[in-house]
Amino acid sequence: MATTSWTRRHVLSLSDFSVAEYDIVLRTAASFREVLSRRTKKVPTLQGRVVTNLFFEPSTRTRSSFELAAKRLSADTLNFAPGSSSLTKGETILDTAKTYLAMGTDIMVIRHREAGVPHAIAREMDRLGTNVGVLNAGDGQHEHPSQALLDLFTICRYLDRENPHTALLQGKKVAIVGDILHSRVARSNIWSLTESGADVHLAAPPTLLPKLFREAMGQKHPDRLHLHWSIEPALEDADFVMTLRLQRERMTANLLPSLREYHQQFGITRDRLQRCQPNVQVLHPGPVNRGVELSSDLMDDPALSLIQTQVTSGVAVRMALLYLMGGGRNS
Amino acid sequence: MATTSWTRRHVLSLSDFSVAEYDIVLRTAASFREVLSRRTKKVPTLQGRVVTNLFFEPSTRTRSSFELAAKRLSADTLNFAPGSSSLTKGETILDTAKTYLAMGTDIMVIRHREAGVPHAIAREMDRLGTNVGVLNAGDGQHEHPSQALLDLFTICRYLDRENPHTALLQGKKVAIVGDILHSRVARSNIWSLTESGADVHLAAPPTLLPKLFREAMGQKHPDRLHLHWSIEPALEDADFVMTLRLQRERMTANLLPSLREYHQQFGITRDRLQRCQPNVQVLHPGPVNRGVELSSDLMDDPALSLIQTQVTSGVAVRMALLYLMGGGRNS
Amino acid sequence: MATTSWTRRHVLSLSDFSVAEYDIVLRTAASFREVLSRRTKKVPTLQGRVVTNLFFEPSTRTRSSFELAAKRLSADTLNFAPGSSSLTKGETILDTAKTYLAMGTDIMVIRHREAGVPHAIAREMDRLGTNVGVLNAGDGQHEHPSQALLDLFTICRYLDRENPHTALLQGKKVAIVGDILHSRVARSNIWSLTESGADVHLAAPPTLLPKLFREAMGQKHPDRLHLHWSIEPALEDADFVMTLRLQRERMTANLLPSLREYHQQFGITRDRLQRCQPNVQVLHPGPVNRGVELSSDLMDDPALSLIQTQVTSGVAVRMALLYLMGGGRNS
Repeated sequence: MATTSWTRRHVLSLSDFSVAEYDIVLRTAASFREVLSRRTKKVPTLQGRVVTNLFFEPSTRTRSSFELAAKRLSADTLNFAPGSSSLTKGETILDTAKTYLAMGTDIMVIRHREAGVPHAIAREMDRLGTNVGVLNAGDGQHEHPSQALLDLFTICRYLDRENPHTALLQGKKVAIVGDILHSRVARSNIWSLTESGADVHLAAPPTLLPKLFREAMGQKHPDRLHLHWSIEPALEDADFVMTLRLQRERMTANLLPSLREYHQQFGITRDRLQRCQPNVQVLHPGPVNRGVELSSDLMDDPALSLIQTQVTSGVAVRMALLYLMGGGRNS
Repeated sequence: MATTSWTRRHVLSLSDFSVAEYDIVLRTAASFREVLSRRTKKVPTLQGRVVTNLFFEPSTRTRSSFELAAKRLSADTLNFAPGSSSLTKGETILDTAKTYLAMGTDIMVIRHREAGVPHAIAREMDRLGTNVGVLNAGDGQHEHPSQALLDLFTICRYLDRENPHTALLQGKKVAIVGDILHSRVARSNIWSLTESGADVHLAAPPTLLPKLFREAMGQKHPDRLHLHWSIEPALEDADFVMTLRLQRERMTANLLPSLREYHQQFGITRDRLQRCQPNVQVLHPGPVNRGVELSSDLMDDPALSLIQTQVTSGVAVRMALLYLMGGGRNS
Repeated sequence: MATTSWTRRHVLSLSDFSVAEYDIVLRTAASFREVLSRRTKKVPTLQGRVVTNLFFEPSTRTRSSFELAAKRLSADTLNFAPGSSSLTKGETILDTAKTYLAMGTDIMVIRHREAGVPHAIAREMDRLGTNVGVLNAGDGQHEHPSQALLDLFTICRYLDRENPHTALLQGKKVAIVGDILHSRVARSNIWSLTESGADVHLAAPPTLLPKLFREAMGQKHPDRLHLHWSIEPALEDADFVMTLRLQRERMTANLLPSLREYHQQFGITRDRLQRCQPNVQVLHPGPVNRGVELSSDLMDDPALSLIQTQVTSGVAVRMALLYLMGGGRNS
């Protein structure tokens, strides 16, 4: 695999990723996606290396995906479980990370409910002169790079199964619908999609999509980021519709009326998709609240939904990231 | 190994298992039991395949047994932990299963406190045209096939160490004692033992063994299923005595007097075993309430108790099931 | 590796360890420490063997260290999690251990909040005629042998990187500071350090270091164990300072004034270390309460702190123990 221009030790944010870097991830993931379709889905790339999942915020789905990706690469995995941890004993997060460093961790996959924790750990690892790579698996409402990269891979592979690459996104319209304000998935996707050349249209109630959001996220490509406070203009001629998970907590915070009202105004249905391109595809990072973000029948329709494909892409993309961060080189 | 007549993708219930199928499981388990007695206890059969334990109801014992069986076959394993899961986020059980399918799971081992959940997931896997096999590791009070198969293997191997097979059970009397009504272990054992030719005698207080039970479970072999509301006739000349775990919750539901009274009326003791065949053997699926279901000294007597043997058999039988479901073929 | 005089199946306590045995552990750990510095850090020594972590008291740090050590030796690992266990169902600890024995466990690593539990399990394993080895990973306030052995290895390797051995400790002064009374780490360290020839000086407030402690722990080498109720004499010319973790619970039990007062009287600071030898090194079993047991800047100073080194040593020493208990022999 060509990893010639890959120079990152850490994957913390997509805000400064280049088109060339996206294309390396897509190309590498494509080759691992091919491995996954074999009967024996393992490669010895990371044999003897240690990948530690430090999930301060629990998540079965994302942790399983990383764990499986690491095992497919023949790495040993350690899982840090916050419940039974030293955290309750007063240890700092950096000290926890340094303990796993001292045990021999090569790559740390970190999720934390506060923005910036993976960055702080990465800085500490660099300061100490280690070779450890840090991967942000979701920090607060900030970023979730591996999710956005698997979304990018899913979309590009849908457009060209043999050769997924960013140029395919030129002129494509992608709608992102839902709780934009609180979504790390949305933020990472905005960086990757606009940089790759897509037109991104955000749609949400004003409480979940403040005007200021445009300034924060549209600096690099202002012409490719569009805000809407109703769903119709966002869906108009869209090629892809990304729905975001709605946190039930938002309601208690008075940011939303009822789930039913939300679904009536912003829920994705077969009817609403009529406004989109004929081949429109729906994505969702999961887990889905059926009947809230999108209608149940839509989710299960393989002609319209890429949701299952996203999960499979997730393993391939995470293999690619661990491989690239591990300094892998096959060719 | 001869797997010529094995055609099941899923193992959900023993109600329709044939004698030929039981014999395939026994034969396959026997060969894996031999592997387990070697110093290096691994075979490469399922290398690169993924076995996912979806235990919606927690269980360390059964999960460890499946996990070890999968590792012995060189499979990768994923564990779904309900506590830290997306379930609390409102995802449906089928969506959880489909997520693990999309990650690349080959075999799902499922435990749930509601009857029928593994069947529903298996139907969904088939409907989607997948090759995934589903193994029921206990669904509500319905069935627990791998436990009954390991009981069958334990008994047959006790009767013929070299060649455990169902014909050995012809004319043998097996007593099943305890909370029959609420026991998935009892139900699966009744199917396997009566089909294999044994005479099964159930013994419990009337609150835990209603008359209707006979109609539900005795359809196929009415002459081989006998109900008793006192323990003596069940033990008379018995070759094997299976005790069931007593759930303490039953007492609060007024289905039982005190544990002490239960032990006096239905507890298995050295004294009571006098009524049985001289070589009688006692089984229990574990974990045991010592001094309730059976007396403590009995449990520890290797001449009378097969309880430890059952645990070892469990790993071999689960290896056999994963092997057969994985389409394994060595010869 | 020379394991000629290693005869222990279990590692339960250091109270009867000989100098020869300490030297075998140090030598074996040194060779595994070298393995850990390679890019591929695995050896096939325990392939197909099963190491089960029975942690009745939760601990992420120590469990991860053992799990990684086992994986480095290519063993399969099982983790017993108390939360989701049969313990809540009334099973005895010995029955839990026997279940994991019957599954095929070769080595059990046991932590329990009550002293003596690992010993009881080891006795039972021997009584049953098994080859299973039991390793005490911390029992109540009694012992924590692998922690003391990794401390010993860390100290000896600091003194001679190429050839860590006990004779290096002759005439060295080691101060142990903190909650001695409740510390299993302190007890195990007193055994190993005094037997190895070091002079051990304990320092703590009288409530955490009763006079009787001397009689209990100083029997074998009364001349090498010294008690102090203030910190200055313990630090005077010390070569190594071991700090112990302070449990916050001690305060509520009125054994301690505030954490701040404790730090003022017994906390290790750069200033206080002036009394020690110029090359003095500080150790701590972790996790550290920064600013309580020792000042934060001290902990991070690689010229003064061996705390990170201890964690890395931990994996090597635990590999050595599993290797020796597994009857390993390379030469």
